[in-house]
Amino acid sequence: MLTELAQQCGEALQQRGLQVTTAESCTGGGIAEAITRIAGSSAWFGQGWVTYSNAAKSSQLGVAPELIEAHGAVSEAVVSAMAEGARARAGADWAIAVSGVAGPGGGSRDKPVGTVWLAWASQLGTQTTCRLFAGDRREIREQTVVLALTELIKSLCGSEVADPMP
Amino acid sequence: MLTELAQQCGEALQQRGLQVTTAESCTGGGIAEAITRIAGSSAWFGQGWVTYSNAAKSSQLGVAPELIEAHGAVSEAVVSAMAEGARARAGADWAIAVSGVAGPGGGSRDKPVGTVWLAWASQLGTQTTCRLFAGDRREIREQTVVLALTELIKSLCGSEVADPMP
Repeated sequence: MLTELAQQCGEALQQRGLQVTTAESCTGGGIAEAITRIAGSSAWFGQGWVTYSNAAKSSQLGVAPELIEAHGAVSEAVVSAMAEGARARAGADWAIAVSGVAGPGGGSRDKPVGTVWLAWASQLGTQTTCRLFAGDRREIREQTVVLALTELIKSLCGSEVADPMP
Repeated sequence: MLTELAQQCGEALQQRGLQVTTAESCTGGGIAEAITRIAGSSAWFGQGWVTYSNAAKSSQLGVAPELIEAHGAVSEAVVSAMAEGARARAGADWAIAVSGVAGPGGGSRDKPVGTVWLAWASQLGTQTTCRLFAGDRREIREQTVVLALTELIKSLCGSEVADPMP
């Protein structure tokens, strides 16, 4: 299912001559791995970052340490900055960024396990959403990858693609 | 099986207080994705790069464009430079880098589909190997991830770990 989604995403990008980049925290490279399952994906994907630590979010993507300190790594402000930093550095049309609590540890009252912020940056601006995914670590990460790609396809194609989380 | 391998790898790193980073071309983030399947992996993994394009190998990891032009992206010289660039940039103890022809296109007489160069860089130097993996794109990528982690575990623990490709 993930491979089919990556195929759809690749076709939507390629038809429009667009490139995407990725900035991943909780998914740890899973979005890039899905995108590059598709043969020929170098036409729409040139690079991505796995910025697992806060230090990497700053050094690799230019996220201000003050922003992380003020809002936490799992926040709209940080995931937006990750997407915008990745997009600028890669010179890509679109950037996807995710930061969340995949668990089983690391949850808090405000940000329980399963909390994930996602951002999609383009020349039109940056869209964000926050979800509270159910399931174990693997399931939370997989749902994040699915949503990341689904929403990109929606943005590219309009809203004819069904939401994976109705 | 990949998750068990990532678990072993994480334990070997954590027991020694070591950090690893990744610089991936043909696996597209699959090594980082495997490493971060393990809860608590932030203790031994802070960041990784997916440098799919040649431009990204240069801009993100400092691989000299002349090196890529002289040897090709799938070469010992380039995969060594990727590993050493990633290790220096991440400040990690170990770096794993891979570059190969996952197919189905992109093969040549010298470098047929399935050709993968891998490098492991540490303070002891950089080890490399070249493999010709059989199978389809998914299988070639998966075998690359397995070998990348298996050889790191071997280097950390000695040679008591069985080779996945006897």
